[in-house]
Amino acid sequence: MHASGETSRPLVALLTDFGPESWYAGAVKGALLSTGGELLPVDITHGVPAQNILAGAIQLAASRDTFPPGTVFLAVVDPGVGGERRGLAMKVGDHYFVGPDNGLFGEVLLRAGGDESIEIVHLDRPELWRETVSPTFHGRDVFAPVAALLAGGMPLADCGSSCDDPVPLDRPFCAREGDELLGQVLLVDGFGNLTSNILAQDLASFLGGADPARLCVALGEHRLSGLLGTYADAPADTALCLLGSAGFLEVAVVGGSAHRRLGCGPGEWLRVSIDDSAEGEAR
Amino acid sequence: MHASGETSRPLVALLTDFGPESWYAGAVKGALLSTGGELLPVDITHGVPAQNILAGAIQLAASRDTFPPGTVFLAVVDPGVGGERRGLAMKVGDHYFVGPDNGLFGEVLLRAGGDESIEIVHLDRPELWRETVSPTFHGRDVFAPVAALLAGGMPLADCGSSCDDPVPLDRPFCAREGDELLGQVLLVDGFGNLTSNILAQDLASFLGGADPARLCVALGEHRLSGLLGTYADAPADTALCLLGSAGFLEVAVVGGSAHRRLGCGPGEWLRVSIDDSAEGEAR
Amino acid sequence: MHASGETSRPLVALLTDFGPESWYAGAVKGALLSTGGELLPVDITHGVPAQNILAGAIQLAASRDTFPPGTVFLAVVDPGVGGERRGLAMKVGDHYFVGPDNGLFGEVLLRAGGDESIEIVHLDRPELWRETVSPTFHGRDVFAPVAALLAGGMPLADCGSSCDDPVPLDRPFCAREGDELLGQVLLVDGFGNLTSNILAQDLASFLGGADPARLCVALGEHRLSGLLGTYADAPADTALCLLGSAGFLEVAVVGGSAHRRLGCGPGEWLRVSIDDSAEGEAR
Repeated sequence: MHASGETSRPLVALLTDFGPESWYAGAVKGALLSTGGELLPVDITHGVPAQNILAGAIQLAASRDTFPPGTVFLAVVDPGVGGERRGLAMKVGDHYFVGPDNGLFGEVLLRAGGDESIEIVHLDRPELWRETVSPTFHGRDVFAPVAALLAGGMPLADCGSSCDDPVPLDRPFCAREGDELLGQVLLVDGFGNLTSNILAQDLASFLGGADPARLCVALGEHRLSGLLGTYADAPADTALCLLGSAGFLEVAVVGGSAHRRLGCGPGEWLRVSIDDSAEGEAR
Repeated sequence: MHASGETSRPLVALLTDFGPESWYAGAVKGALLSTGGELLPVDITHGVPAQNILAGAIQLAASRDTFPPGTVFLAVVDPGVGGERRGLAMKVGDHYFVGPDNGLFGEVLLRAGGDESIEIVHLDRPELWRETVSPTFHGRDVFAPVAALLAGGMPLADCGSSCDDPVPLDRPFCAREGDELLGQVLLVDGFGNLTSNILAQDLASFLGGADPARLCVALGEHRLSGLLGTYADAPADTALCLLGSAGFLEVAVVGGSAHRRLGCGPGEWLRVSIDDSAEGEAR
Repeated sequence: MHASGETSRPLVALLTDFGPESWYAGAVKGALLSTGGELLPVDITHGVPAQNILAGAIQLAASRDTFPPGTVFLAVVDPGVGGERRGLAMKVGDHYFVGPDNGLFGEVLLRAGGDESIEIVHLDRPELWRETVSPTFHGRDVFAPVAALLAGGMPLADCGSSCDDPVPLDRPFCAREGDELLGQVLLVDGFGNLTSNILAQDLASFLGGADPARLCVALGEHRLSGLLGTYADAPADTALCLLGSAGFLEVAVVGGSAHRRLGCGPGEWLRVSIDDSAEGEAR
């Protein structure tokens, strides 16, 4: 769509918990743009719940797929800033990631395809960072300069020493328990939809060949039946289960908020089972 | 201001109800930017109240004017995603619009100038979309790819079949009732200003030649007098009426929030009349 | 990092109190981008507390440093829009600033280095503005066009008449009172950190040569000891003092919100003293 020889600016996609009311994200973008290279900062979100590494990790993994090869993801949810925790940069497939080594990239690593190469370094070359590094703002002073260098074409290996033990993400996994699949709510989005930790493939393997209409989900005191395709498949104000766009089983209320209607949020247990009764129809 | 021959990137302006705390807008921007073309995504807002088509339609129409010719507006407030509702793309004057066919573009169409050409298509060419289309995320999988193609120069007619029956916007209009003009509050902004559904031209026609200072507005239990030019025309903490920047009659409180001070929000009735008494001065 | 002769787009960095849920910032970006020049709008934040000039001024000064030379800062916190207050544009060092003359640029001016040149004009050339100027939206109609012109290379002096009396920022300064340094909380960020009005250099001069570990800070009913380097230097849930990334003394709670935990917000007094007792250790 553009003249040959002309190249797009490399993208630096930002995901942080700085809050939309803060100047912090602006300072990071300034640091990215003052390195002299051509790059385009793209805000994914700055509204990850404060210091919630798990939420940030899930959102980062969910948003990764649409970005073009070469994109550098600069992710900062960093309760341990300035302490012992290391910084890292990594290449997974054709994407780069820069941020704190605290599990924030753990979901990306978990989901990395078998055919995707993974290369990780610790950020231990201060000469690449801003001249003065604030002990409370590595997003601006350490991660942004490194992200800009990667966007400008610096090889990953030049950003630091090879690392083979990144901190894993501490997150609950769903598990079989007798006839049930036991999961938890991980996130609530702005619509009040509840994202669980049950990946589409976990659910498919649990269902085996069973009709998805026979799915039963117990959530708090509520009991939902059937796996629907989309919000529009049920009448208004109905609670339903579907596979959400982050790749997980999701509970939603049509035209409303499942979070408020069902009184459930992160941490709530989901018990998934298969209805053995004859009819097998979604209620 | 730039060397001749060099062209600006086409703009894709985004307006959604995804919420600033969500990764959804980021995924849409990734999808826009991975199509290979040169374009610049510009966030209008991702804070339209969830699933509020009316609010989105008003904000879209209000923000349209400043954008340059060729801008593609990608708007997503989409409670019916994945169901029967169609997607559409349209050209109004020199602007393009892409999103769900649910009334979201209705205010733009209502306000289109008599000299503006209007051309509308339904999105029925899946080969233009992302390979896999999630039934819950057409913003990313359907609308973004089409918006990117339009930004890259694809003719509108190539995006789908001609459409002459877009879903109209379901919104209250102001109406004459005896000596009064009866309107409603449509929106509250971040300052607490109340935007009504009374357009400047409706008000002018209602006033006829009468002095705007003789305007009376009853709102809940409150009674406001006179049409002021700007917030600075009244003392602090005063409630006043003016023509807001969205083109509608607006109620504001100087240095405060009309929403909180007057206890009024969307749906509240406004009764507008002309003061017949002698003095005719703003109180 | 890019071919010689190729230049980066000039940046226009935006800081406003429009709120992330509003279309106002989008309209301003449209106005910037419709001037025909090549420029890149960069959102710092649109979440400055409504009409809070002080908060905007502090955040603007804090975020300025990372942006490259030539950046134009378009800042709008403008309770007096449409009234007597003037608009201004200024050049401080290599940065430009455009917005209302109400103190919003006062902190930038206060902190300007002795070696930085300062040049200020009032915006009194309507022929540079949008054709129709709404009395309630100068961000879109006056400031954006001027910012775009400056980004495109127009000399500051061509934007208006020279000004030597910009409205100063009305903000509390910290002061010595006997053996104490008396300050106030200016801002709360999204993590609940409390930013005071005590600049790092004020604190250093107050401490003289004393060990920072002997610092005592009384805040409401709370008493904090020692100046730590970063959030990671104390156990979880501990309240601590450190020098924040905005350049001010900051009170934080490790892994939590000082705002909620200490029950303190903007305006709260801080009494800073030096512990004369023998041990001099952070508690």
